[in-house]
Amino acid sequence: MATAIREHTPKLLEANAKDIAAGIEKGLSTAMLDRLKLDEKRIEAMAAGIDQVATLPDPVGQIMDAWTPSSGIRIEQTRVPIGTIGIIYESRPNVTADAAVLCFKTGNATILRGGSEAIHSNRAIAEALATAGAPDHAIQLIPFTDRESVSVLAGMDKWLDLIIPRGGKGLIETVVSLARMPVIKHYDGICHLFTDAAADLEMAINLTVNSKTQKCGVCNALETLLVHRDIAREFLPKVAAALHAKNVELRGCEQTREILTNISAATEEDWGTEYLDLILSIKIVDSLEAAVSHINEYGSHHTDVIVTRDEVTAERFLREVDSACVFHNVSTRFADGGEFGFGAEIGISTDKLHARGPMGLRELTSYQYRVRGNGQVRG
Amino acid sequence: MATAIREHTPKLLEANAKDIAAGIEKGLSTAMLDRLKLDEKRIEAMAAGIDQVATLPDPVGQIMDAWTPSSGIRIEQTRVPIGTIGIIYESRPNVTADAAVLCFKTGNATILRGGSEAIHSNRAIAEALATAGAPDHAIQLIPFTDRESVSVLAGMDKWLDLIIPRGGKGLIETVVSLARMPVIKHYDGICHLFTDAAADLEMAINLTVNSKTQKCGVCNALETLLVHRDIAREFLPKVAAALHAKNVELRGCEQTREILTNISAATEEDWGTEYLDLILSIKIVDSLEAAVSHINEYGSHHTDVIVTRDEVTAERFLREVDSACVFHNVSTRFADGGEFGFGAEIGISTDKLHARGPMGLRELTSYQYRVRGNGQVRG
Repeated sequence: MATAIREHTPKLLEANAKDIAAGIEKGLSTAMLDRLKLDEKRIEAMAAGIDQVATLPDPVGQIMDAWTPSSGIRIEQTRVPIGTIGIIYESRPNVTADAAVLCFKTGNATILRGGSEAIHSNRAIAEALATAGAPDHAIQLIPFTDRESVSVLAGMDKWLDLIIPRGGKGLIETVVSLARMPVIKHYDGICHLFTDAAADLEMAINLTVNSKTQKCGVCNALETLLVHRDIAREFLPKVAAALHAKNVELRGCEQTREILTNISAATEEDWGTEYLDLILSIKIVDSLEAAVSHINEYGSHHTDVIVTRDEVTAERFLREVDSACVFHNVSTRFADGGEFGFGAEIGISTDKLHARGPMGLRELTSYQYRVRGNGQVRG
Repeated sequence: MATAIREHTPKLLEANAKDIAAGIEKGLSTAMLDRLKLDEKRIEAMAAGIDQVATLPDPVGQIMDAWTPSSGIRIEQTRVPIGTIGIIYESRPNVTADAAVLCFKTGNATILRGGSEAIHSNRAIAEALATAGAPDHAIQLIPFTDRESVSVLAGMDKWLDLIIPRGGKGLIETVVSLARMPVIKHYDGICHLFTDAAADLEMAINLTVNSKTQKCGVCNALETLLVHRDIAREFLPKVAAALHAKNVELRGCEQTREILTNISAATEEDWGTEYLDLILSIKIVDSLEAAVSHINEYGSHHTDVIVTRDEVTAERFLREVDSACVFHNVSTRFADGGEFGFGAEIGISTDKLHARGPMGLRELTSYQYRVRGNGQVRG
């Protein structure tokens, strides 16, 4: 499958150019166009992701746990495929390859329904994968991108064991309200970085800039910077200079604007907004508790970071923030299946059931209990 | 909590007597009345279940996995509570205690909504538990049993992280169609036992009788016996005699009725029916393949058993039957949280996502990724 993707690079670029041209005509945002874009580097990354998945151990058949209760029966909890998985996604065409290879590796059949913006790219990727010799119907791309195909899929609970919507809130809400089968949701990433009073400020600046600007149109990009009041006067001018150098627009709370007098005001709405753009909101907080409660209230339980030299404070943050990924002295951008070593990812789940955070191979399996005995009956 | 249950035994019996009297007046079936019934033995079992849960290791905070990718970040996958769990259930009052203690042990808040048949028993159990010193609101029993309270709960996705319906198909269907949060379903147990050509027939008789009659009103009771044609003439008269001695009504396929000439015919409907009563359907099959495909088509993916001395056949059965519990030479009645060593169970999930089969403490947890680094940024 990786080879097929590499060999089809010219066809993929050609198909993607059609999608990009249509996207520009439609007036898609910079962030949307960036998500849609394929270039040789991204196609190679897609193929390399497949190569990496191929080298990973196959989770199916793994014994997760085994024990023998007093009755003498031997219980084994064994990983098995989930079954047939529907994936409904929007602009990013690499999802077609990532989802197909992860589901295929784990013995699941996949029904893919991509967005209209990426239809040429998605078809070209599916055609490339189809040349690689997988069984017919193991990977199916629905050639329609109308809304009806979403509601038809969502009603097929007899046939689909799981549906994974990846895209905007509207799409996910639609799927959640229609679906009768389990849904694993990939909602916003409203990610925070808290610069504690005991932070290494140089490190905090690097992590803030990397988290915000290394790729801004993705769910693990930073959206809100929280700053402990004790170091705000020293830290804010430095971090603001570094962010301005990267063209980041800053929006601050009242206290922040007493220090950074040139920036605009953050409104209540800003705290709950996933910008997916070069915009960052900044808030000064009085304590760890205030940081944690801001994050638990306004965040999306995706990825939140503390920067501090104080281990005790760090551990409290990790325990008290109710998010899928809680990081100490690490960029938010590491909340990623590839960076976690999963090879490729289906997405980053904001649900708490079954899969939370980056979803790789293991998260695409179920299990069954295989029990062996010698005639045990219950008395 | 166990002590509180024991001390309240007279009050629980008194309350339960009201429910039983009302149930008889309403004309509830024998199976329903059996589910509803509390006696000293069952109350002691409820308390003993709590004692056992108390001695089990607390899964919250357990590190499920930990690794360090090449970037040098240290990733820990740590168990955390799910949050607030709604449990909607019908007749069995012990669910009130089981669900409360399992959720409490795992740091979850619970909202319990029991059925009208058991309302006196449920209130008495909740009152007993409330004397044990748990924080207010950690365990809440909704005092209403009307249908509206189900739809109100199902719409509270801002507040409830998970909803678990336990009861008849109608109740579960209602919750599934209304709920916007994840649902873990506990559908029927249409359980099979396949007596292979290489079975120890004495063992097969014992396992069949135990699976069908040890307690017939429960989801892990046997509903269909599959018999390999090669041993049918020898096995069927013996097993039929043993089952008749326990007052089990038999319904057979055409081939079965050539051997057991006195029994009535099983219709297509029988193969898909959870009797929850002393009735058993019997079918002769030509092969392992035929047994597996009957089970995968008509079963409910709950618990299925093979009885055989042939290890190769047994392993194929365990791998090919798509059920939560697949057993070799063990009674279906072992598909149970208590027998699995979970102490008590929330139920037996027929879903494939998050929790499959008996649900104990682990299945009531989620996880988060706690990641520690020293300033890692993505390049």
